[in-house]
Amino acid sequence: MRAEVISIGTELLLGQIVDTNAAYICRRLAEIGVDVFRRVTVGDNLDRAVAAIADALSRADVVITTGGLGPTEDDPTREAVARAMGLPLVVSEDARRHAESLLAKAGHEAAGESALRQARIPEGAAIVDNDRGTACGFIAEKGGKAVISMPGVPGEMRGMMESTVLPYLRSRMGNAAGVILWKVLKICGRGEASVEDEVRDLLHGRTNPTVAPLVSLGEVMLRITAKAGSPEEAEAMIAPVEAEIRERLGDDVYGTDDDELQDAVVRLLAERGLTCAVAESVTGGLIAHKLTQVPGCSAVLGLAVTSYSNEAKREILGVPAEVLERHGAVSREVAIAMAKGVLARGRADVAISTTGIAGPSGGSAKKPVGLVFVGLAWRRGVACARLSLFGTRTEIKERAARRALDLLRRHVLRRW
Amino acid sequence: MRAEVISIGTELLLGQIVDTNAAYICRRLAEIGVDVFRRVTVGDNLDRAVAAIADALSRADVVITTGGLGPTEDDPTREAVARAMGLPLVVSEDARRHAESLLAKAGHEAAGESALRQARIPEGAAIVDNDRGTACGFIAEKGGKAVISMPGVPGEMRGMMESTVLPYLRSRMGNAAGVILWKVLKICGRGEASVEDEVRDLLHGRTNPTVAPLVSLGEVMLRITAKAGSPEEAEAMIAPVEAEIRERLGDDVYGTDDDELQDAVVRLLAERGLTCAVAESVTGGLIAHKLTQVPGCSAVLGLAVTSYSNEAKREILGVPAEVLERHGAVSREVAIAMAKGVLARGRADVAISTTGIAGPSGGSAKKPVGLVFVGLAWRRGVACARLSLFGTRTEIKERAARRALDLLRRHVLRRW
Repeated sequence: MRAEVISIGTELLLGQIVDTNAAYICRRLAEIGVDVFRRVTVGDNLDRAVAAIADALSRADVVITTGGLGPTEDDPTREAVARAMGLPLVVSEDARRHAESLLAKAGHEAAGESALRQARIPEGAAIVDNDRGTACGFIAEKGGKAVISMPGVPGEMRGMMESTVLPYLRSRMGNAAGVILWKVLKICGRGEASVEDEVRDLLHGRTNPTVAPLVSLGEVMLRITAKAGSPEEAEAMIAPVEAEIRERLGDDVYGTDDDELQDAVVRLLAERGLTCAVAESVTGGLIAHKLTQVPGCSAVLGLAVTSYSNEAKREILGVPAEVLERHGAVSREVAIAMAKGVLARGRADVAISTTGIAGPSGGSAKKPVGLVFVGLAWRRGVACARLSLFGTRTEIKERAARRALDLLRRHVLRRW
Repeated sequence: MRAEVISIGTELLLGQIVDTNAAYICRRLAEIGVDVFRRVTVGDNLDRAVAAIADALSRADVVITTGGLGPTEDDPTREAVARAMGLPLVVSEDARRHAESLLAKAGHEAAGESALRQARIPEGAAIVDNDRGTACGFIAEKGGKAVISMPGVPGEMRGMMESTVLPYLRSRMGNAAGVILWKVLKICGRGEASVEDEVRDLLHGRTNPTVAPLVSLGEVMLRITAKAGSPEEAEAMIAPVEAEIRERLGDDVYGTDDDELQDAVVRLLAERGLTCAVAESVTGGLIAHKLTQVPGCSAVLGLAVTSYSNEAKREILGVPAEVLERHGAVSREVAIAMAKGVLARGRADVAISTTGIAGPSGGSAKKPVGLVFVGLAWRRGVACARLSLFGTRTEIKERAARRALDLLRRHVLRRW
């Protein structure tokens, strides 16, 4: 089955918002084996919307639209679909009642009129219920082809995709279609070139599954993509390639798909019954924030301190004044003293710390922007890494936080 | 001038990545007055790329492509543009030398061959230099129309837009075109319905400038968009509408455009020569992270503590054990004691604290997930707000952090 996706909204053409809907729809379609060869965006303009839908219908079996279903005169999608398919618009009483009751609850003026506009569908179309908003969607069929229209509000569209649209497409396809699945292996502690050197033979000349490198803020990922007759078959094709990559990269692979470093760290500490503490200067709370994103992190994290000032480093973490004076706040010695201090204050098994210069100002020839020390302390020892990071303030904080979490992860893997 | 934007890449059609490039290009085009009526995405497929470019050229004066300029067989853009325009492909020696020197530096095998592939351009096209990568872009003209091709790597594309493509388009347009500019007013402490009630007459029936509400994670924004002959004229149209909205919403407007709450807070504290301290439980470092995103925040923030455990609340912040026992960690009394404790430890002028239940587990009938207390302490007093938030763990942390920052902002505005 071939589908095309049409995003409708002037805000998209002005670049006022990024179109995450189209990516989501395409991903879900790929996962059930629907081919998408083209995606189009038009504004809230009736003629151009009609042209885009008619054009897409000339090539595809199914056209999916998102956006332009609201109650204003500017929202063109209902009428555009009707015209492109040569169907009259009619009012769905079910959709009208749904919209009216939600609008009345919210105290909207002119609830009746708004509801009426949002209840119009091409004659014969099936309603797609919207649990989270007033505008219904619809599936209109004619001549063996279908147009499916959903609102542009991401949460509403996703709910409708999952509850109605994907089941409809699956039943329409029967068992004929294949699927495309992928798995992303998340890697840290190695640059892109080093990862590519290790797996070059897997990257080139393979067609199914394929292996492709991705890079984001200093993190490298490898995406294994398989096309197969069923999800089970695709997974079976991905598994040996994953095993091969894990064999070669070892501990550098910290997780898969939506895993973040902090998920791996919290999982690992919890498995081993360990607690950690954090002392942050240059990362300014980011490491604590990342760790506390993970449900259940309270079992492994009790205390994190952001000690931006020298007073806080001295008084809360017990960094000796003479160490601060002799070496400066951005130094190996202070990083280690911070980690030792927070280890003791938090009565933890292991602690990490960061101190450095995030910029944009505050750098010098000897201590430039991007210089970061990551400290590590446990009951019987300490360690420190010196990093030279680049990028904006945000990027330097992010990279430093990731390196600190990775240092902690590797230390626990090796030692406990 | 009319332009269309074509994004080329199979990863886009599979939904593996979100297309931020198209939004960026459209935004920059709107700002210089280029009309974009249609955006298309195709995969790395030569025939479909040729069709999309030819189709776009039939309607638009300028077609801008992004993606598909890499060195592999799969990258179709160079050949697709040449075919769609009926021009032969030739090798640009300048582009070849540029690519080869970068590839050789990076130690790539087969640098010569890769460089050669990336140096091909339609005959007569002008090179668009790429400061950050190997693949040159180009501007090809024929019959009064132009195709502009840039790589898909966002940083490379943006650099080329700014340095070459936008100046080219400006000079091509002369003074004929108008511009579209907008300004976003950021609002907090009010729901969407309440903001709409206040400005309803500005939202409806206006065509230039228009005012539109936007909502993101509990924050409401109003976007004022003006179409005019020049940027100065557009700004002059926006100014009185902005003034009117500010008059009506008062302190609820905390900033504009890319301002975040933390920018407003740091600016305000710095202006008044004040320092703050932060004690976080439910927000787990997020408030500190937000504040330390702002350059210069070290002048106003010395200490932030994430006290996830009761021990940390007692020992670092001095929350009395009996208060913790009698009221529980998630309580008004503990929020206030945390704020007072960190105010004293950090020797700050004002302090905020958070305690609550971020979920997904840990809630009870009496203290459900989403219950959050925000404490505020200054030298002569304390205050506390009780919030009932909804959403995922991430959303609850985010909403609680914003409410705490807003409470701090309003307190400083009123008191100092």
